[in-house]
Amino acid sequence: MPATLIYPTPEDVETAFYKAIVQRDLIALMSVWAEDDEIICIHPTGAHLSGFAAIQTSWRSILGGSARMEIRRQRVARWNGMLISVHHMIEHLHLNKKVNGPIQATHIYLRGPHGWRLTCRHASPGGAPMLIPEKERRVLH
Amino acid sequence: MPATLIYPTPEDVETAFYKAIVQRDLIALMSVWAEDDEIICIHPTGAHLSGFAAIQTSWRSILGGSARMEIRRQRVARWNGMLISVHHMIEHLHLNKKVNGPIQATHIYLRGPHGWRLTCRHASPGGAPMLIPEKERRVLH
Repeated sequence: MPATLIYPTPEDVETAFYKAIVQRDLIALMSVWAEDDEIICIHPTGAHLSGFAAIQTSWRSILGGSARMEIRRQRVARWNGMLISVHHMIEHLHLNKKVNGPIQATHIYLRGPHGWRLTCRHASPGGAPMLIPEKERRVLH
Repeated sequence: MPATLIYPTPEDVETAFYKAIVQRDLIALMSVWAEDDEIICIHPTGAHLSGFAAIQTSWRSILGGSARMEIRRQRVARWNGMLISVHHMIEHLHLNKKVNGPIQATHIYLRGPHGWRLTCRHASPGGAPMLIPEKERRVLH
């Protein structure tokens, strides 16, 4: 399990997560997760994955496709504590520049010995407004 | 907005939330939410509700049905901080004793001037194991 990267803030973890998807970099993607076998990843399909191995296998399959993939996100809300930070976002999945989604995603970040890491991603389809221009996006605090 | 109830722990909020559903008590159900118009409730249908009024209207409709409704839950994981607590659960919706679901639910609780309150419920269908006996349920923390 990669353990050398330090993420000083939850935002750093989040940036690394989405960058790894664009770059189809499985090692980078897995480096954002907490070093805990009780990490959880729920895909928009409803699939519930628990533990590093299961999550890695699933993302290897996702990142192994041939379409150019990018996730653009609107940050809807953040709740920040000393050791826990939660971000709720609306994601728009771009596959070969075609917009899919929206997806609603709740990310839970924990601060541990290697800085902040992702410990739970809960993603599900639907219910979101269409893409909103950057200047109108709502960001709390 | 109800503000008189004090919930000393996130578990107290959670118990009150599910009890209010069984009792179809809209006032009790709304009393568990944080006094913040940026509260979020995502239903398993994908509907994204934001703010007290929208969430109240939706739950009034849900609780207004005639079927006996109960949600049984398995706690999958908890992450507890000083001011933020996150619980991830698998829910099984019982309507007139028939089991529907499963539903995956992430609840975010915040500690404020009136104790703990629910600030975000993210629910989505699918992906869960079937009901597990109480003694085998996994509780972290």
